[in-house]
Amino acid sequence: MDEFAVIERFFRGRGAPRTDVRLGVGDDAAVVEPAPGTVLVLTTDTLVAGRHFPPAEFPPDALGRRALAVNLSDIAAMGAEPAWALLSLTLPEADETWLGAFADGFASLAETMGVALVGGNLSAGPLTICVTVAGQVEPGLVLTRSGAREGDALYVTGRLGGGAAGLRALRAGQPVESPQVRGYAFPQPRLKAGRRLAQHAHAAIDVSDGLLGDLSKLLAASGGLGADLSAAVIPLAPGAGPEDALGPSDDYELLVSLPQGAAEEVAGTLGCEWHRIGNVSAVPGIRLDGEAVAAEPLGYRHFQ
Amino acid sequence: MDEFAVIERFFRGRGAPRTDVRLGVGDDAAVVEPAPGTVLVLTTDTLVAGRHFPPAEFPPDALGRRALAVNLSDIAAMGAEPAWALLSLTLPEADETWLGAFADGFASLAETMGVALVGGNLSAGPLTICVTVAGQVEPGLVLTRSGAREGDALYVTGRLGGGAAGLRALRAGQPVESPQVRGYAFPQPRLKAGRRLAQHAHAAIDVSDGLLGDLSKLLAASGGLGADLSAAVIPLAPGAGPEDALGPSDDYELLVSLPQGAAEEVAGTLGCEWHRIGNVSAVPGIRLDGEAVAAEPLGYRHFQ
Repeated sequence: MDEFAVIERFFRGRGAPRTDVRLGVGDDAAVVEPAPGTVLVLTTDTLVAGRHFPPAEFPPDALGRRALAVNLSDIAAMGAEPAWALLSLTLPEADETWLGAFADGFASLAETMGVALVGGNLSAGPLTICVTVAGQVEPGLVLTRSGAREGDALYVTGRLGGGAAGLRALRAGQPVESPQVRGYAFPQPRLKAGRRLAQHAHAAIDVSDGLLGDLSKLLAASGGLGADLSAAVIPLAPGAGPEDALGPSDDYELLVSLPQGAAEEVAGTLGCEWHRIGNVSAVPGIRLDGEAVAAEPLGYRHFQ
Repeated sequence: MDEFAVIERFFRGRGAPRTDVRLGVGDDAAVVEPAPGTVLVLTTDTLVAGRHFPPAEFPPDALGRRALAVNLSDIAAMGAEPAWALLSLTLPEADETWLGAFADGFASLAETMGVALVGGNLSAGPLTICVTVAGQVEPGLVLTRSGAREGDALYVTGRLGGGAAGLRALRAGQPVESPQVRGYAFPQPRLKAGRRLAQHAHAAIDVSDGLLGDLSKLLAASGGLGADLSAAVIPLAPGAGPEDALGPSDDYELLVSLPQGAAEEVAGTLGCEWHRIGNVSAVPGIRLDGEAVAAEPLGYRHFQ
């Protein structure tokens, strides 16, 4: 099968059917109709074999799902609703079994989340998956990193450290379906939570480079604020230790800064766990149980 | 420099300033405002080192420009106006000279074409560049592959074969600025022509896999029509032979099907050369000077 046959067989018309798609896979570009009264949210993320996932151990259906999930997590962190996805897939050979599983994994999450696959392209080369997602949100409900205020409570969705712990377990031979690996292999984009939080939160960020690293970005974007965290209340994923939760870990949870009263009001309506981990402070820097945390490196960084 | 320093230094705020960008590079996702009364056109394309360009010979500024140009060509083929770009860059090391030249090449074309770079990401890995562009067009002016009609004239913008000839010359040691290489290294996205043609053409496609391959796609999408071409009138780029123009060649010109009268009317208003190469026929298949052209393979295909 050449690239056009692969696209036709595995990727055309996949994901959720949406009436706002005028032209999907098959022309020079896709054509979609934005909803009136919304602004557009755009994000792109690439997964590189051997860098973002271990290609030998990571099954193609989980990979297809994950490539979309990491982008949906960014859409969730903006308080937006995802609508359309583009998939640019580079792979060494057109193996039909691999492609079928990859496309099914991608499409199953897309269907669940109401996302239509509207375009993309396919090339021969080292395994690399670049996904772009466009979403929509009412202009007044855009959630950014930059609005945290002194005295806010800091919360996270779900549990942390599952990315680091899961990768370790996967490399140690645990199956993808095991509780330790599942958090890593099948991240749950917190779209419902993001939409709900957009009405209440001051700031939010997608925890994808580790809690401390992403918290420091949120605090910096909010004008150089600080934070006090309590280690005992940081929710740990199965198999994860505190260092997994704090350091680089592909968790794809939301870290949220909001007034304490609002946090209590939304609890139970987010579709996921919701834990307070600390407070925003006017004193710059991050303190864990009162001890300053080394400023660098706090999160995962390419080229270090 | 780690990835965040690279993004800050080379990529934040690049391209054209646009008042419809609410939030550019630096948050979980970009936020932009679509123009009322338009539909959105979305395209993505990846360049893989060694597959889409020879990394040793191809300078980074030309590569940055090209990565955007190939996407703008798809936007042009839809009759749309490009607005926002996302860049997902995977590269083995963060070399500052390389990055500066790459970013400058990308940004210079973006500025010329009115495109803002609003987001993206950076990873370590094999050199791969994935660009996504979103554009806008009035719903009644969307130009697709599927509207060609019997009796239409077939035209191309610019000259063909420059992609194949230029790659050959580059590999033979010719500099990027030489006339033979320039057509390959610096494709000109035909945005002005696409916008103008949207008001007159029945169908258009971006010639990026070779004239015969892309013509066959346009004819298939238009209900299985055929075409008669005349070899003598196919415009050849400097250094290109007829086989370069017909077969796989990264040309990024527009192939357009439209009534003969309309073609004459728009000539001179497109901002580029404009040549008739043949006619659309009700008889399926493509004929060159009356001789049937082998149906397969007509264009470049990955995984063959």
